[in-house]
Amino acid sequence: MRTHFDCIPCFFKQALAAARLASGDPVVHERVLRAVSSAVAGMDLRDVPPKMGQLIHREVRAATDGSDPYAAAKHEFNDLALGLLPGLRETIASSPDPFETAVRLAAAGNIIDFGGGRTVTAGDVERSIDYALTCDIDAGSLERLRRAIDGAATILYLADNAGEIVFDRALIELIGPARVTLGVRGSPILNDVTVDDAAEVGLSELVDVIPNGSDAPGTILNECSPEFLRAFDAADVVLAKGQGNYETLSDAPREVFLLFKVKCPVVAEDAGEAMDAIVVVRGGAVG
Amino acid sequence: MRTHFDCIPCFFKQALAAARLASGDPVVHERVLRAVSSAVAGMDLRDVPPKMGQLIHREVRAATDGSDPYAAAKHEFNDLALGLLPGLRETIASSPDPFETAVRLAAAGNIIDFGGGRTVTAGDVERSIDYALTCDIDAGSLERLRRAIDGAATILYLADNAGEIVFDRALIELIGPARVTLGVRGSPILNDVTVDDAAEVGLSELVDVIPNGSDAPGTILNECSPEFLRAFDAADVVLAKGQGNYETLSDAPREVFLLFKVKCPVVAEDAGEAMDAIVVVRGGAVG
Repeated sequence: MRTHFDCIPCFFKQALAAARLASGDPVVHERVLRAVSSAVAGMDLRDVPPKMGQLIHREVRAATDGSDPYAAAKHEFNDLALGLLPGLRETIASSPDPFETAVRLAAAGNIIDFGGGRTVTAGDVERSIDYALTCDIDAGSLERLRRAIDGAATILYLADNAGEIVFDRALIELIGPARVTLGVRGSPILNDVTVDDAAEVGLSELVDVIPNGSDAPGTILNECSPEFLRAFDAADVVLAKGQGNYETLSDAPREVFLLFKVKCPVVAEDAGEAMDAIVVVRGGAVG
Repeated sequence: MRTHFDCIPCFFKQALAAARLASGDPVVHERVLRAVSSAVAGMDLRDVPPKMGQLIHREVRAATDGSDPYAAAKHEFNDLALGLLPGLRETIASSPDPFETAVRLAAAGNIIDFGGGRTVTAGDVERSIDYALTCDIDAGSLERLRRAIDGAATILYLADNAGEIVFDRALIELIGPARVTLGVRGSPILNDVTVDDAAEVGLSELVDVIPNGSDAPGTILNECSPEFLRAFDAADVVLAKGQGNYETLSDAPREVFLLFKVKCPVVAEDAGEAMDAIVVVRGGAVG
């Protein structure tokens, strides 16, 4: 997805939110805002929006001591979600269609997203679960994903956010961890999952985890490591979570299933979906 | 009021809204957004926010044929408000405190403001009137304004928006047009009042009208004409309408009464008022 004009006010909102989270110093806030202004003045609008997200968070790190402003939120939501995990498993096991329920819950967990300058509360997570269990979801898209996973020997599952990854764990347990490799971000960006976050919720013991080698809040393939790209090309199915992965992989050179909750009006318009919807989009070069 | 960091995302929202209203051409939208980015990268944050508003609308005019994108909205809301005028006069005349009611209605009319990327509907105007007639308003501030006007031989009334100016007319009729001079913008900017708009609602026949010589959406004194500055300095009372006048005159070198409806969180915080409130602020160098 290319950058839309409506992304531009949002870049500044994101930059200000990230700068304020990283530092209480107005000099830092100003430095970040000015750097983003200069970058926007010359940016290539054909770039995917997470390219500017990457720049914003690099500027925040450059203007501070580089420590991760989202570390506390990542631990908090991993803990919160681990507390919910027994209940999630029970809901899935007792439902008439465990696969559909596990997919709905994985999408519900995608509410735990600090992108776009958003913040998240425990109440938001609870409401997102309740909503996801009963809201409309496109039956055809869900069936295509089910058939693809049923027929796959290898699945590359691209995680999005800390906390959300526990919801992903419940889905991975259901579809069988032996077939699954988990792709994560190469280094901290927003509250996105890294190798350490996956380990914190026990996923490293369950599946192979590959960092993608990039610090973008999405999957910008031409920045990813050769190891990650081999896994990306070779997997029978790629299932990618979250808007950042939608924005960076909707035009990928191979088929990618994108599972997320719609939280941004530009993504909503681009995907032809409603705000708040949970969606399974089949993107990339569809085979 | 200086520019706050939170104004910066809003500048881009305003620029995009104005560019889209002026043209359907994405090339124009992009040109305006890039120009604003360059300007923000180097701007002086001690400037008042309407300084950037002025630049945004100059860039929009430069990127188009320069015709006024707000002309239709100005006529529409002048007409709408003229239709309401007999009812406004009747409400004022029949109220136990006609001055307070006229001030409340003048503030209600300030909802007709296309600044900040906002749009306005007839329903918004109706709701603003109902709200203003019953909401809290600081009694002390209102009494200070009443006493100042009661004791004034000359009043400079600085208008804000087309449509709103009909509400101002009802207040000016009550306080006595003979004492009043009306200050308006020097040339079209947003839906702000110019000499032509004041004439359209019959105010030119009632009071002297002075353009301020500037195309800023507020009153930036060091850009105003000598004639306007003489009237500004000499008036016993200056009563200025709207957020743009608050932003540019709250630190003026003389006392200014600022009457407006709070529509922006930055102004709300700066003025210590709640969103949606109608307020009379005594700003500038208070004598």
